Amino acid sequence: MLKKLLTINGINKTVVVDPEATLADVLRKQLFLTGTKVSCNEGHCGACSVILDGKLVRSCIVKMKKVEDGANVTTVEGVGTPQNLHPIQKAMVFHGAAQCGFCIPGFVVSSKVLLDNNPSPTREEVRTWFQKNLNACRCTGYKPIVDSVMDAAAVMRGDQPADSIEFKLPEDKRIWGTKYPRPSAVAKVTGTAEYGADLALQLPAGTLQLALVQAKVSHANILSIDTSEAEKMPGVAKVVTYKDVKGRNRINGLVTFPTNKCDGWDRPILCDTKVFQYGDAIAIVCADTKEQALAAVEKVKVELEVLPAYMSAPAAMAEDAIEIHPGTPNVYFEQGVVKGEDTKPIMESAAYVVEDSFYTQRQPHLALESDMGFAYYDEDGRLTIHSKSIAVYLHAIMIAEGLGLDPAQIRMVQNTAGGTFGYKFCPTIEALLGAACMATNRPVYLEYDYEQFITYTGKRSPFFMNIKFGADKNGKLLAMETDWSVDHGAYSEFGDLLTHKGAQFMGAGYDIPNIRGLGRTVCTNHAWGAPYRGYGSPQSEFASESLMDELAVKIGADPLELRYLNAYRPGCTTPTGQTPETHSLEAMIDLLRPKYKAAKEKAAQATTPEKKKGVGVAIGIYGAGGDGPDTAEVWADMLKDGVLISTTWGDHGQGADAGALGTAHEALLPLGVAPEKIRLELCDTGKAPDGGPAGGSRSQVVIGNAIKVCCDNLLDGIRKPDGSYMTYDEVVAAGLPTHYTGRWTSPAAIGDPDTGQGNPIDNYMYGVFMSEVTVDTKTGKVVVDKMTIVANVGKINNKAVVDGQIYGGISQGIGYALTEDFEDIHKHTNMVKCGIPFAKDVPDDIEIIYYDDPRKTGPFGASGVGELPNTAPHAAIINAVYWATGARVRELPAYPHKVLAALAEVK
Amino acid sequence: MLKKLLTINGINKTVVVDPEATLADVLRKQLFLTGTKVSCNEGHCGACSVILDGKLVRSCIVKMKKVEDGANVTTVEGVGTPQNLHPIQKAMVFHGAAQCGFCIPGFVVSSKVLLDNNPSPTREEVRTWFQKNLNACRCTGYKPIVDSVMDAAAVMRGDQPADSIEFKLPEDKRIWGTKYPRPSAVAKVTGTAEYGADLALQLPAGTLQLALVQAKVSHANILSIDTSEAEKMPGVAKVVTYKDVKGRNRINGLVTFPTNKCDGWDRPILCDTKVFQYGDAIAIVCADTKEQALAAVEKVKVELEVLPAYMSAPAAMAEDAIEIHPGTPNVYFEQGVVKGEDTKPIMESAAYVVEDSFYTQRQPHLALESDMGFAYYDEDGRLTIHSKSIAVYLHAIMIAEGLGLDPAQIRMVQNTAGGTFGYKFCPTIEALLGAACMATNRPVYLEYDYEQFITYTGKRSPFFMNIKFGADKNGKLLAMETDWSVDHGAYSEFGDLLTHKGAQFMGAGYDIPNIRGLGRTVCTNHAWGAPYRGYGSPQSEFASESLMDELAVKIGADPLELRYLNAYRPGCTTPTGQTPETHSLEAMIDLLRPKYKAAKEKAAQATTPEKKKGVGVAIGIYGAGGDGPDTAEVWADMLKDGVLISTTWGDHGQGADAGALGTAHEALLPLGVAPEKIRLELCDTGKAPDGGPAGGSRSQVVIGNAIKVCCDNLLDGIRKPDGSYMTYDEVVAAGLPTHYTGRWTSPAAIGDPDTGQGNPIDNYMYGVFMSEVTVDTKTGKVVVDKMTIVANVGKINNKAVVDGQIYGGISQGIGYALTEDFEDIHKHTNMVKCGIPFAKDVPDDIEIIYYDDPRKTGPFGASGVGELPNTAPHAAIINAVYWATGARVRELPAYPHKVLAALAEVK
Repeated sequence: MLKKLLTINGINKTVVVDPEATLADVLRKQLFLTGTKVSCNEGHCGACSVILDGKLVRSCIVKMKKVEDGANVTTVEGVGTPQNLHPIQKAMVFHGAAQCGFCIPGFVVSSKVLLDNNPSPTREEVRTWFQKNLNACRCTGYKPIVDSVMDAAAVMRGDQPADSIEFKLPEDKRIWGTKYPRPSAVAKVTGTAEYGADLALQLPAGTLQLALVQAKVSHANILSIDTSEAEKMPGVAKVVTYKDVKGRNRINGLVTFPTNKCDGWDRPILCDTKVFQYGDAIAIVCADTKEQALAAVEKVKVELEVLPAYMSAPAAMAEDAIEIHPGTPNVYFEQGVVKGEDTKPIMESAAYVVEDSFYTQRQPHLALESDMGFAYYDEDGRLTIHSKSIAVYLHAIMIAEGLGLDPAQIRMVQNTAGGTFGYKFCPTIEALLGAACMATNRPVYLEYDYEQFITYTGKRSPFFMNIKFGADKNGKLLAMETDWSVDHGAYSEFGDLLTHKGAQFMGAGYDIPNIRGLGRTVCTNHAWGAPYRGYGSPQSEFASESLMDELAVKIGADPLELRYLNAYRPGCTTPTGQTPETHSLEAMIDLLRPKYKAAKEKAAQATTPEKKKGVGVAIGIYGAGGDGPDTAEVWADMLKDGVLISTTWGDHGQGADAGALGTAHEALLPLGVAPEKIRLELCDTGKAPDGGPAGGSRSQVVIGNAIKVCCDNLLDGIRKPDGSYMTYDEVVAAGLPTHYTGRWTSPAAIGDPDTGQGNPIDNYMYGVFMSEVTVDTKTGKVVVDKMTIVANVGKINNKAVVDGQIYGGISQGIGYALTEDFEDIHKHTNMVKCGIPFAKDVPDDIEIIYYDDPRKTGPFGASGVGELPNTAPHAAIINAVYWATGARVRELPAYPHKVLAALAEVK
Repeated sequence: MLKKLLTINGINKTVVVDPEATLADVLRKQLFLTGTKVSCNEGHCGACSVILDGKLVRSCIVKMKKVEDGANVTTVEGVGTPQNLHPIQKAMVFHGAAQCGFCIPGFVVSSKVLLDNNPSPTREEVRTWFQKNLNACRCTGYKPIVDSVMDAAAVMRGDQPADSIEFKLPEDKRIWGTKYPRPSAVAKVTGTAEYGADLALQLPAGTLQLALVQAKVSHANILSIDTSEAEKMPGVAKVVTYKDVKGRNRINGLVTFPTNKCDGWDRPILCDTKVFQYGDAIAIVCADTKEQALAAVEKVKVELEVLPAYMSAPAAMAEDAIEIHPGTPNVYFEQGVVKGEDTKPIMESAAYVVEDSFYTQRQPHLALESDMGFAYYDEDGRLTIHSKSIAVYLHAIMIAEGLGLDPAQIRMVQNTAGGTFGYKFCPTIEALLGAACMATNRPVYLEYDYEQFITYTGKRSPFFMNIKFGADKNGKLLAMETDWSVDHGAYSEFGDLLTHKGAQFMGAGYDIPNIRGLGRTVCTNHAWGAPYRGYGSPQSEFASESLMDELAVKIGADPLELRYLNAYRPGCTTPTGQTPETHSLEAMIDLLRPKYKAAKEKAAQATTPEKKKGVGVAIGIYGAGGDGPDTAEVWADMLKDGVLISTTWGDHGQGADAGALGTAHEALLPLGVAPEKIRLELCDTGKAPDGGPAGGSRSQVVIGNAIKVCCDNLLDGIRKPDGSYMTYDEVVAAGLPTHYTGRWTSPAAIGDPDTGQGNPIDNYMYGVFMSEVTVDTKTGKVVVDKMTIVANVGKINNKAVVDGQIYGGISQGIGYALTEDFEDIHKHTNMVKCGIPFAKDVPDDIEIIYYDDPRKTGPFGASGVGELPNTAPHAAIINAVYWATGARVRELPAYPHKVLAALAEVK
């Protein structure tokens, strides 16, 4: 052990440390300075950045033996505090730079060192600094962070007034439509927001630390599991196997369609007879320390009979493939599309026919924070599970029967989550925690390292798509034929619904009177399919938006004008036969057109044989709501000094708190309650009613409407005859209720599994994307120079939040287009290898043009936003590559070698 | 478990807690807000005070089930931070209110609530508030704390300028003699100072938590120890018994005199054959958690043959008493006094003879912080032990052989100590930590709860004294005869030296030409004797100062004038035959006289039959230094931006840092180095040379002189021909050394064990105490209305520190006089039951009159201070009780029932 005296944030600290311990671990686990976050734990993401003797270091790779005695360390806690924010932190609050916020302490510290050394950086210098210092952000597309640093620098130099980075309440005191800072912002920029791993350090003494025995193969029969040696290891309280799981030992996959041949009970909590995918949990070691648990994991003996692993849909569909889940065919669900006339004769007679095949890869979510959670019995004896769940009520249902409980016996709580982007729509760690807590009757904590997080959580499922358009001589679409296979990985949950999305979104945006199609859900041995922003649309729309460009080429039409010609207009219907609730695409294209023309001209002028420039467009559409009637419940309680709004609005980092607050504040305007007097309870089934899960951009619309209903009920309940409102004391004195309930259900009907026809969602988001790219024809590397989006998200609740969603979504779209994949389970094991975009991989120039289009069924006119920016930005990029080079990339991501291969086809 | 959302210091915190956990434990051990200290853990000391929803609570007795969800908690960390001190904290820094500082966070928080509710309190209201809220302080006598609150309130009201509570460097930039804030002050008032239990929460993962198997009887033979069941308990890594101790398994008691019949090897590290006192450690359970260790303690089976327990010196001296340590007589050391002529004939012919017997009790130190420490192997493989040791080099020697090591293989480090007052001159926990660390090869932590701390650490030893004066007709002393028995408890360490102190201090202050006396050290089965401020003098001087008053009564002389008549004057010698280094007592009494007369007059006027008032005086003397030649070594290293001073100046809370800094700054004045540029390394044998232990008020004199020598050497080494000094860079460029050593040895020779004669210490501290008391003749309760001390401590280094030492020492003297004891091992188990004085038990009016008397052998004229205020304040109080009532209390403490009994004798 080393004894060192360190000056940490100006305070002398004597520490006794293992020489091999990292500075990050010592700061977090010994000194409990949990503002410093650990994400990759390999030094390539910058979340753990601290200042060591004046220099920026990534503390997760600094060994304590290398830290000199007497060293000076500054962590985010030393940069500023909630009561005394540093200008960098103030600016980040102002610009909404903290979404999930997990990377933000690292950015704050990194920015501090930058400005300490360069008080007047250019935007490019800021971006280069973050690139050089490997500060990764998955939420923001970096733009709000760079904005913050530039403004903070200006304020610090005195070039800008101090209050230029402070939110000012407008005179009408409405926060709806403003950049009111999200309630969690200050905590996030100061490192005082507590994520799962931070809370874990604060659990009661006696909490058991868990480690998993996981499969290292993708498909196998389990012959035996021997835990006897592991049980004898020091500190081990219990090794939990399937035998200890009290219930059905399966996650309830919640089948949507009765035609699904899988009953949804295919995913084991702990493997019993088979391993279905790499990483599958076979046993849980419960020990006093994590180190003890990990040591005992090595002592659990698992005997396997390895089976052939089917790592893609075609492989699992091969004739000789055995059933992965015995008794259930590998192709377990089919989704048809039958709209209008038979397409075969139309295709035969159409003036233009184009057809192509496309593939979209298995996109990893790459949240900065890995996956973790803890469980204990609460004061009412409820099994209480804290995790990153964005679907707390749903997850109780999904894991209850497997654990042998009634859902009401489970209380689910969402911790502050360092990003999910949808993967936490699926249970990950929850049932494991439940099983371990039940087996030991002790509080338990389980955390995945980043590799476990990548390899053992769900992914955006690959689609193998074939698509065909028939058009008349003017380019007006007459018919579409589609065929798609969804590689849904080892487990079925939501797989039928995802396949159904192909019927909704292939060809979305266009008036296509006649469609025939068939999609299928395929079980494979790769990572199970989990929701991801845009769920089904990025895949589907990549196919149709790529083909739309191919049609334009064939016709010799301008791709934007071809889209304009075919875009939804009154009288048309969506691919599922639904009448769009609004017709804004023409007007949106009108907005984009002049920019498009200018961009094309600029590209034409700047293009060179080595650096070819091009402009691509794509329409992106997604529904804001769950499929079919979608309900949320909300409670409003009058408090002595405000109102408490309770529901379950899960947070990915997208701004659930800002969303709920903005909506409630607007709904309660007549009451004149200040925003800081509206308390929120959004994450705990023990305290809040069921608002539904945070997926499909449903929350603002469905929960937002329920908030409005609930607040209206409250106002009605306390309104005086003269139209004014009673105070809390008056309400209590009058014996009137202080508690109000509101419910809202979306007027929708899910589509038919055979025909795809229906009105599944009543409120959509619309976008027109434009991408300007440079293709290096020697290396095949694509650089996105600018992204533009015309966005119709209805009325905007919180401008900073909505801007941030779009910047971040587009950034993920760039990764999807060019760099991201989770294909090789042994190689794609960290965020760099999985292709996360760093600061310079995302253009500084992202232009958002909002098309103001209040929705009738959106609360105060709002639609959703989160999925929209992921729907089709990648299609616009791949189209831009085509228009720059003539090379068509059909299989994502467009790695340089694929671009070079496509370029070779052109030559 | 309960899940609660708490707002802690303005930050929202989700906590999962055991309903039965205390708020203090949750704050400290789950949220790591270690500014909140836990001392008594029973709600009677206020160290753990926090604000819960606006109310002051003692968090160690607030169960989490009683803390409402949504509650607002403010801890000291939320009152102010090092960078942003609250006025209360600023004032406490300014007034030196934080000595050991352990109680201070509680006082800060308590004061905050007081001032929140009463912005203009009177001093009495402040004192009443602290009394009511049970804020206990053992160091300060409360006065500097009350001063701070009054000033902070005035500043907060705007009645006093903000900078009135800020130290201002004088124009000459000298800090010697000023109230320069001690370097540790800001950390202490903000709760950021880290004590042992705080550091324990920051130890590396894998640190074992220890719990002791202790004897529950006071004397027994051990028949067997069976650890087999305990070893099988969950989490237990090892149960360490004497069999695991690699060396001699004994503490080296460091015999001073060769005539000692005990060899000093009587105290086992872990009991093997016998139990010698209640609490003796028999085994150490080493487990992953403290709870596991405690559970396993219950499973260790110890078979005992209980022996008669000798709980006092007379009992152990009884003829039928068996040898407690077989082979060593219970009376194992005798100290004679032979000065001048045979006293028998003088007594027979003296005009006045008085004789009486006195008893002083076993005073508990009652530091607010209990005892704890940890051990590990450092990077050089040295067994490194952190504890509250104030004698780091000495303790390495005392425990090494017992552990089977060479002292050089042991590195000792003192943690910030929450008070010791001398008990940590003895090893307590050190050898246990060493044994456990060696047996497990893991870092280990051991903490005593407050009851363990009281019952299993050393105490001020009781003296049973008989004393006789012979005087001439004018009251001039002719001879003294003394006999004293020291109940040194179960272990011998320093017991001969303590007994020797009786020879030095019975009759100290007076010119007594002829003395005969005999003292003896007695082994008993009560708590072992440990140093305590004044070591031997409070006992000895209680006897001679009480008898001096009896002589005054007999003669009809004024007690102050009788002392004046007999006080040291040129030509006289001390009881050990030494010529005092200064003769200030006459002048000091001259200073007191007018105040004494006024006080007597006031008492006479105010006295009533029910509330009798009186004034008592006493002279107090103690040596500033270890007995005999006493050496310290100091290093000074030039640094690029200052100087590093290294030595071992242990801190009890008395202000080692301020002492070392003030001395070094004065010594380095020619260099003009700013005080904040002088770094100190005072606590680690791995980093600093041997400065000797922090006992006997030696540090300022012995280490202070060594600092001066060392700094002089440095100045000599870097002085340029023109008399100016080289910079660090110049020194390095010139190839000159940057490292300097200084050593100093006091010119003294220890007294003879047969005659007591010698010059044991070369520099003494002198005090004349005056006490004004009110005795309730109905209840026997004594209230001290005022204490006055004329103090000669040489030149004052740091005025705030020296004032604080005197206030605090007098407060402990009041406790010693009236309320404190550790006699009943089953009853005297917490600080209230042991009689610690609270705010209203100590007068607000404590007047210090400094007699300026620079010492030749003190650095810059300084003597010591720490022991002085404990020498004889209790004697002045007991004398005042006599002058108020005529009742003489001869056995301390003067509990009301004893005062009533003495009053009954008068009537």
